[in-house]
Amino acid sequence: MSSSFGQLFTITTFGESHGPAVGVVVDGMPPGIVVDAADIQRELDRRRPGQSALTTQRQEADRVEVLSGLFEGTTLGTPIAMLVRNSDARSQDYDKLKDVFRPGHADYSTFQKYGVRDHRGGGRSSGRETVGRVAAGALAKTALRTVGVTIVGGTVRVGSVVATRRDWAEVERNPVRTPDAAAAADMAKVIAAAREARDSVGGVVEVVATGVPPGWGDPTMAKLDALLGAAMLSIPATKGVEIGGGFGMAALHGSETNDVFDGARYLTNHAGGISGGISNGADVVVRVAVRPATSIGKPQTAAAKGGGTTTIAIEGRHDPCICPRVVPVAESMMAITLVNAWLRQRALRGRER
Amino acid sequence: MSSSFGQLFTITTFGESHGPAVGVVVDGMPPGIVVDAADIQRELDRRRPGQSALTTQRQEADRVEVLSGLFEGTTLGTPIAMLVRNSDARSQDYDKLKDVFRPGHADYSTFQKYGVRDHRGGGRSSGRETVGRVAAGALAKTALRTVGVTIVGGTVRVGSVVATRRDWAEVERNPVRTPDAAAAADMAKVIAAAREARDSVGGVVEVVATGVPPGWGDPTMAKLDALLGAAMLSIPATKGVEIGGGFGMAALHGSETNDVFDGARYLTNHAGGISGGISNGADVVVRVAVRPATSIGKPQTAAAKGGGTTTIAIEGRHDPCICPRVVPVAESMMAITLVNAWLRQRALRGRER
Amino acid sequence: MSSSFGQLFTITTFGESHGPAVGVVVDGMPPGIVVDAADIQRELDRRRPGQSALTTQRQEADRVEVLSGLFEGTTLGTPIAMLVRNSDARSQDYDKLKDVFRPGHADYSTFQKYGVRDHRGGGRSSGRETVGRVAAGALAKTALRTVGVTIVGGTVRVGSVVATRRDWAEVERNPVRTPDAAAAADMAKVIAAAREARDSVGGVVEVVATGVPPGWGDPTMAKLDALLGAAMLSIPATKGVEIGGGFGMAALHGSETNDVFDGARYLTNHAGGISGGISNGADVVVRVAVRPATSIGKPQTAAAKGGGTTTIAIEGRHDPCICPRVVPVAESMMAITLVNAWLRQRALRGRER
Amino acid sequence: MSSSFGQLFTITTFGESHGPAVGVVVDGMPPGIVVDAADIQRELDRRRPGQSALTTQRQEADRVEVLSGLFEGTTLGTPIAMLVRNSDARSQDYDKLKDVFRPGHADYSTFQKYGVRDHRGGGRSSGRETVGRVAAGALAKTALRTVGVTIVGGTVRVGSVVATRRDWAEVERNPVRTPDAAAAADMAKVIAAAREARDSVGGVVEVVATGVPPGWGDPTMAKLDALLGAAMLSIPATKGVEIGGGFGMAALHGSETNDVFDGARYLTNHAGGISGGISNGADVVVRVAVRPATSIGKPQTAAAKGGGTTTIAIEGRHDPCICPRVVPVAESMMAITLVNAWLRQRALRGRER
Repeated sequence: MSSSFGQLFTITTFGESHGPAVGVVVDGMPPGIVVDAADIQRELDRRRPGQSALTTQRQEADRVEVLSGLFEGTTLGTPIAMLVRNSDARSQDYDKLKDVFRPGHADYSTFQKYGVRDHRGGGRSSGRETVGRVAAGALAKTALRTVGVTIVGGTVRVGSVVATRRDWAEVERNPVRTPDAAAAADMAKVIAAAREARDSVGGVVEVVATGVPPGWGDPTMAKLDALLGAAMLSIPATKGVEIGGGFGMAALHGSETNDVFDGARYLTNHAGGISGGISNGADVVVRVAVRPATSIGKPQTAAAKGGGTTTIAIEGRHDPCICPRVVPVAESMMAITLVNAWLRQRALRGRER
Repeated sequence: MSSSFGQLFTITTFGESHGPAVGVVVDGMPPGIVVDAADIQRELDRRRPGQSALTTQRQEADRVEVLSGLFEGTTLGTPIAMLVRNSDARSQDYDKLKDVFRPGHADYSTFQKYGVRDHRGGGRSSGRETVGRVAAGALAKTALRTVGVTIVGGTVRVGSVVATRRDWAEVERNPVRTPDAAAAADMAKVIAAAREARDSVGGVVEVVATGVPPGWGDPTMAKLDALLGAAMLSIPATKGVEIGGGFGMAALHGSETNDVFDGARYLTNHAGGISGGISNGADVVVRVAVRPATSIGKPQTAAAKGGGTTTIAIEGRHDPCICPRVVPVAESMMAITLVNAWLRQRALRGRER
Repeated sequence: MSSSFGQLFTITTFGESHGPAVGVVVDGMPPGIVVDAADIQRELDRRRPGQSALTTQRQEADRVEVLSGLFEGTTLGTPIAMLVRNSDARSQDYDKLKDVFRPGHADYSTFQKYGVRDHRGGGRSSGRETVGRVAAGALAKTALRTVGVTIVGGTVRVGSVVATRRDWAEVERNPVRTPDAAAAADMAKVIAAAREARDSVGGVVEVVATGVPPGWGDPTMAKLDALLGAAMLSIPATKGVEIGGGFGMAALHGSETNDVFDGARYLTNHAGGISGGISNGADVVVRVAVRPATSIGKPQTAAAKGGGTTTIAIEGRHDPCICPRVVPVAESMMAITLVNAWLRQRALRGRER
Repeated sequence: MSSSFGQLFTITTFGESHGPAVGVVVDGMPPGIVVDAADIQRELDRRRPGQSALTTQRQEADRVEVLSGLFEGTTLGTPIAMLVRNSDARSQDYDKLKDVFRPGHADYSTFQKYGVRDHRGGGRSSGRETVGRVAAGALAKTALRTVGVTIVGGTVRVGSVVATRRDWAEVERNPVRTPDAAAAADMAKVIAAAREARDSVGGVVEVVATGVPPGWGDPTMAKLDALLGAAMLSIPATKGVEIGGGFGMAALHGSETNDVFDGARYLTNHAGGISGGISNGADVVVRVAVRPATSIGKPQTAAAKGGGTTTIAIEGRHDPCICPRVVPVAESMMAITLVNAWLRQRALRGRER
């Protein structure tokens, strides 16, 4: 079940980047929830390539087809399978890469694992696999809204430009998807410079859930922190995750980081809404480190399949900064994680609260 | 199965901090491996309280009893249950905390989750739960050694003191358990100062696995990064995890972070030994953010069970910095994660490599 | 994950009987195995309605489309998604059943469970869901052949007619799919009589795996008997399963049922190839009780959705005896179960034997 | 996780028959339920050897120790670990069996699986492993009683003597544990005769759950039938399971087996309380085929470890008929299965009904 995530609301994605299709089966969506297919499409459009000058120019319409689980617009409680055809797979871009392991990519590790691989692209390691996650995430968000939980996300760092504001309404108004309107232009410049240099640049994405009641998550192995950590680090190109104060707390004292709670609300939120692995009623705050995209046009030294090294320059059409497109994926993985924690708590107590 | 971790080598811990015992069942240990019970005890002694002036003075002998799964010193391939009695549970220290939710602790979230709790201590959220993890980790390390994988770990930051060297042989020679002998004294000072101020301080722990062959881990949901992320963030008091370059890569370019691999070895290791979720043959490197201990003697404002707030000063005997004792736990969780990835790869290919 | 089966070779089916499509995602197929899509289609054709006068006349071409996981005819080790469109959904047959709970069907229990249902047919409870199982089973059989395991199956009882021979080559030569050529005509008569009476009749299906080496299966909860039991009883319309001597052993003594094994082969096989939950090297033999189809034309008293009862006669086109079409499904579920036990044993030992 | 059963209420058993102890960890018991340790002990006493002349004379006090998960007699919602020491392991009885594979036992298959085994007894395959199941089952029964579900069980066949009545109050009044007082003496005679002949005899055990509301169980892979099938066939010495009409329905017509439901109650119960895998409100009825005990005193031909055959007569102290002691185990496995289905339905709907 290495392509599945979640125990009660389980998503299983399928599809290679250059195969016939990508998609997902969502098993465990609660019954009786009205689903608007346009909501799913809208989320996919946020993830879609070719949205702006800052993202890859690969063109994919990414129209979703819902194959099961809905009847007259309402969830049946049965698996919801969703399919997106791969329409613009320019495999010829990849032919010259058949016998080389691209630097930073999963080419070598994949070949060592399976002894066989589809050299035409990243296969399962491609960001294209996240189509299924975002479609599933749209359902998860819809389900969470029925209990008052909403999720927002945005790019909070690109290169050395750090967002200092969290105005979530700004996110869809700039192509970087940052909640800090003042930082958006600088971030865009950093990305454009990387593109011009045939290079790429890293960043940080933050996702926040509001309305999560206290009691979701478990105290030991299934801490909400741990589940969110797995969710985020399963997203391609992520190499770090932190909850609330995260790594910044390493430099602080307990008297500074113990959140002040007056019984009704939290005056601080170093814990990122999770105490002892269980939601405490404050906003759940997660940040994800996004490495620079591995596909760059600059010439690089690479290992050849037969041994030795060669020099390659990756042509194709690639993202100079993945952050804007990671945002809907990170939101989706957070939503999927939270739906699981919610349903698990319902199993434990037999009621919503 | 919220107290279980791992699909093929599964550990299930049990026990409250102030109940009769803590322990673990390890299901999936391969058969025919010679196990020295002294190895298990040695790891538990590294985790044990009261080791030095830098850790809590709570005294627990923490003698492990192996209840099953071994026959004449060799693993049978059946579940290995291990038990440690709680001998020094001074519950009276906690009586005054019955009707108050300690700041930073899981008291409130636990009560909201279950509607009931053992107020005498952290219960399952206590660091005492990690006894079972460390016992299981000793077995995981033993299993990994049979295929040439070894794991080391240490404290690489305390407060603002950062270790710049990785001399792993130093770790057990200083009470902070840092691999940087030059930084050890400064780290110890920071901890002592925190203790004196009836406060606590945070830090960072790093764990490294050497000898991991390429091919462990999966490309999507069960990325080795994701499994390690869940493993680390399931440890009490951790609030962040990063693999290889981690958050530092946010500020870099792809031309800097794409690791140079000549087909035989890696000249850099920004990926932390994992490409596309699959081990690539380089060392697997993980860092964990450890928040300052939540139990501090300084007076704090706390929420009262019945509503409103009160002031408390937590007496008891607590760790001013948890890092030294997190080290064996983080090593254990890494070992358990890697055994699972190893066995999974054996299932896939039917052979060791 | 209630629509998934198997831990290492996991199938997840989706689709309602009267929705757009049915299908399956197979996660865990080993890499590097050559797959002939015609093999998958051939198995689906064995399950397909309208094969003979003994089965339903519902016409479905049931053409399978493979969406992922194959590259140049070889498995990649990644999820294999397969899709079959529903082409002949005559939903109008069901409109009159909107407000009635058909006797023997899952209509009432489904409605109670979900609070909503697709009244146009059996939904997920329909035999149509088994399309995905058979497509997955074809892959499982292909994988098992690489290690010398083959699976056969047939109808061994219809009504009171019991097959006394096991000539598996006969199975595809008669529409009842019985391995006893002498009994085939009598069985067909019983089925025809049931059809004529607008009724249905039950039976028993047997599946046998040869070539299973000793060592597959686990000693306690994951006994091979238990996994096969779950596999078989997850097939629609099955209400019993027995391994080897099964219920017949209730009347015997240990001196009769302890199989005689000379170290090389078994002279008897009361254990059905499984000792203590683990394969012992003999053929694995499983029988499944198949209840009479619940859809019958005879007038019946049924509960009405609003309360009280009504009389209904189910029109539509239905199977008077399900056994012939259960055969490929039972074979598939056995194959899927055995692939899991095989891969699990590879994980345990790191080699084929 | 081959020693675990259940996804939401998970039991994990441990312990070899001749090791230091056997036990279980129960993870997922709902919080806030009052548990009387005497209830657990009472169930263990029903399973205990040496209860009557009809069972093995092996003496085990089987005193249970609860190690965690309870606080002031109430469940915390955390794992409940329970331990029973092995006190009467007369290993010398087994020394002569070191180099022989006992007929009907798991000796050979276990050795093939693991390459190593504890020859002193059945190890994990021993009936002694069921101690943990019964302790866990006592908790499951306690939990089910809070929602009005009760479970009874008894021996309904021994050899060719079949119980025709279901007077469950009779079960604990006769050593065979049959609900048919009139058949009890004949059954006892059959068992005594088998013992006298140094042989053993098979039988059938039935378990029934009353009060199960409609809606428990899932429509495809996790059918309640399938889960119960796995539960029952995971019990040592079982080789068949049937739900409701079971194999008897093979000979009937749909017009006979479609249960008549008037919207309020069922006039017949061929479905055994489960329609399409989901409970329908009628009693859930399961029968289990119990093979004759494999340990018999009669001389038998057996395979020798080094090759060839030898003759053995198993001394020790064994049960001539396992049925009376299987009863509490089968009840326990049914209870554990139903708790899982119950909690799963709570997750789906967020309320009890």
